Amino acid sequence: MTTDLASRVYSHRWKIDPIVRSLIDTDFYKLLMAQSVFHNKPNVHVVFSLINRSKDVPLADLIDEGELRAQLDHIRTLKLSRGESTWLRGNMFYGKRSMFRPDFMEWFENLTLPPYHLERVGDQYELSFEGDWPAVMMWEVPALSVLMELRSRAVLQSMAKFELQILYARAMTHLWQKVERLRAIGDVQIADFGTRRRHSFLWQDWCVQAVKEGLGDNFVGTSNCLIAKNRELEAIGTNAHELPMVYSALAEGDTALANAPYRVLEDWQREHDGNLRIILPDTYGTKGFLEHAPDWLTGWTGIRIDSGHPADAAEAAIAWWQQRGEDPREKRIIFSDGLDVDQIDTLFHRFNDRARISFGWGTLLTNDFRDLVPDNRLAPFSLVCKAISANGRPTVKLSDNPNKAMGPKDEIERYKRVFGVGDQVAQKVVV
Amino acid sequence: MTTDLASRVYSHRWKIDPIVRSLIDTDFYKLLMAQSVFHNKPNVHVVFSLINRSKDVPLADLIDEGELRAQLDHIRTLKLSRGESTWLRGNMFYGKRSMFRPDFMEWFENLTLPPYHLERVGDQYELSFEGDWPAVMMWEVPALSVLMELRSRAVLQSMAKFELQILYARAMTHLWQKVERLRAIGDVQIADFGTRRRHSFLWQDWCVQAVKEGLGDNFVGTSNCLIAKNRELEAIGTNAHELPMVYSALAEGDTALANAPYRVLEDWQREHDGNLRIILPDTYGTKGFLEHAPDWLTGWTGIRIDSGHPADAAEAAIAWWQQRGEDPREKRIIFSDGLDVDQIDTLFHRFNDRARISFGWGTLLTNDFRDLVPDNRLAPFSLVCKAISANGRPTVKLSDNPNKAMGPKDEIERYKRVFGVGDQVAQKVVV
Repeated sequence: MTTDLASRVYSHRWKIDPIVRSLIDTDFYKLLMAQSVFHNKPNVHVVFSLINRSKDVPLADLIDEGELRAQLDHIRTLKLSRGESTWLRGNMFYGKRSMFRPDFMEWFENLTLPPYHLERVGDQYELSFEGDWPAVMMWEVPALSVLMELRSRAVLQSMAKFELQILYARAMTHLWQKVERLRAIGDVQIADFGTRRRHSFLWQDWCVQAVKEGLGDNFVGTSNCLIAKNRELEAIGTNAHELPMVYSALAEGDTALANAPYRVLEDWQREHDGNLRIILPDTYGTKGFLEHAPDWLTGWTGIRIDSGHPADAAEAAIAWWQQRGEDPREKRIIFSDGLDVDQIDTLFHRFNDRARISFGWGTLLTNDFRDLVPDNRLAPFSLVCKAISANGRPTVKLSDNPNKAMGPKDEIERYKRVFGVGDQVAQKVVV
Repeated sequence: MTTDLASRVYSHRWKIDPIVRSLIDTDFYKLLMAQSVFHNKPNVHVVFSLINRSKDVPLADLIDEGELRAQLDHIRTLKLSRGESTWLRGNMFYGKRSMFRPDFMEWFENLTLPPYHLERVGDQYELSFEGDWPAVMMWEVPALSVLMELRSRAVLQSMAKFELQILYARAMTHLWQKVERLRAIGDVQIADFGTRRRHSFLWQDWCVQAVKEGLGDNFVGTSNCLIAKNRELEAIGTNAHELPMVYSALAEGDTALANAPYRVLEDWQREHDGNLRIILPDTYGTKGFLEHAPDWLTGWTGIRIDSGHPADAAEAAIAWWQQRGEDPREKRIIFSDGLDVDQIDTLFHRFNDRARISFGWGTLLTNDFRDLVPDNRLAPFSLVCKAISANGRPTVKLSDNPNKAMGPKDEIERYKRVFGVGDQVAQKVVV
């Protein structure tokens, strides 16, 4: 192959191989949420912080601080490009044009991500971001993907050329076996939700294209905007826990707190309809959320199940719709918590005739490097980046799995009381 | 990635994607033998012909005749390049410089491969080459690799992009498992003998590099001159059945016939020593060959075992050396018949303490695509290209496996009588 001299020389100039090269190399729902926040809570001061739930992965031993800073600094140089802006302004999302309004787009076009605070503590990094909510929230996904990929690179560093080829050959083969199993399951709708904890950008890009070829129209899209744009796929997503977490932290008193999760969705439905009206009910316990939900929420399109025992939560949602006089077969249930093929298989067969089922397949789509190197040093791990405070007040998350709970102890107890959360079954958090 | 415009435009001009792009994309022993023939039998008129032993592979149904002709025509446009010539003239082979003499090199530099005769008969092709032995013999390896690769391409034609990636990922993974098993066996010397029945040129090139990385110095080289040159590896090989077959066809009467295989080696040893003095004893039966061998042959470096039951043949060689007062531990035994890892493992452990053992790993190194596509349509098959006549007289091969015998029936009977070949055990010819 003839080398393209100009490309090669141009590449000499890069001091690093940047991981995140675009502000839209992020989850679609971040942009939807940012727009909502931009309109409803633009001046809330938030702190987002990295939390490595997998203490056995010593990130600070694996990843050079200078390299991490260089990657984060590079993200701060990124600006929304003209083509990216045009795509966001002009593309049809969920069948709707002009989903992003001109005032938000103008803000986004001028956005530079705010500074970060990085400190090594023991064998972990403390990494946090502070400032106005709409800008700070944009750090979550790139921060996670930078750390995940730097960890991959650290492990891959010592491998020889063909050893690397074989590693990827095995990972590809492994993914394809999953595709073949998914095909055998039947007409199962799958989307890529794997941006934040991907092995690497190029690997996610490969996986998305491979699964698209393998599943055809049953692969309904990707949460990654850049990949959706480049590969002409649907961008997929709705909303996440950060909205009820920040709204709740801002609530004055217990009554306001109890209502906060519904206030989020009130704000949300002013902007969105159809497939974007998806309830995420587990932030402070799915059971209580559904029991106390106002009637207008039953008219929403569906529900996303992101913690706890997924079949139990789906049963609870179906029962809730039935009690409220809705036909669950007209409703969508999106499963998105640490899925892999076995679970997709089980859930699909259990619920396919009873509701519209789809799956947001995340880490085990884009980062299933388990058992491919000695000591499992490439296995995915549980890294999150969460809003930990809003206007100086701590945030709390309970979820349907106490292992995913976060926040100060006394606040957790208060939230449990306010939201009527009783005993919960702990589930291992894999990814 | 930026496209190199010039390369892309240059590529537009190619009407085909040529399989064989160099006259040294061939086995090293072809060149050694060609030099010997050039000096000893330059004007013998030979016919080489393609023989597909795998009748279940309908080559003429799979491969378009026009494409086959275009590939063969392209080979006839090839000339030894200056760099190739320099490498052959200057490189050290088996520790010796100037292995190829100036008169031979001059002939080779001026060589254009002679015309071919191609005809479709039923679902097979009849392909033959006719002319002076040194030129015609150069067709064997490229003709085989063209047909093998066109068959691969025909099967791959209908596959989608990622399906293809997965196919190669699986093949790579599969090869690497073999490498890991070979590493576990111990200090086992392996060479690539897989040019003629490779899946494709690029795949062979990949396999050689991967096995080199995986086995390090235990991978002793490749029979393919072009790959040896490009990858700076040892070129490996000695001599093949075509020498005794043509010498025997030319022999006048039974006494001369019985002596012909030894006359070949007399001619050979005038030119070569060391690792090139390797006996290939099975053309007309290993047993008789060794019994009647002149004493000077016992001084040769080793023996290559290419048919029959390999352990039996190795035992026969060891017993023969012992009878003749030689120490087998100073002798080399090269196994080269349809090897794969299991057999290498068994033979290595049985003979490693008793002789110098090495393995010429061929088709199942460079074309093990068994079970990777439905109906096994990429599995390697048994295609050969042999000298079938010399100065108008038919050639005969018996070998130690009657399934590999070739020649007219009455001549086979005559050869069996002359060489004292009795009952033979038939073995399935896989590749």
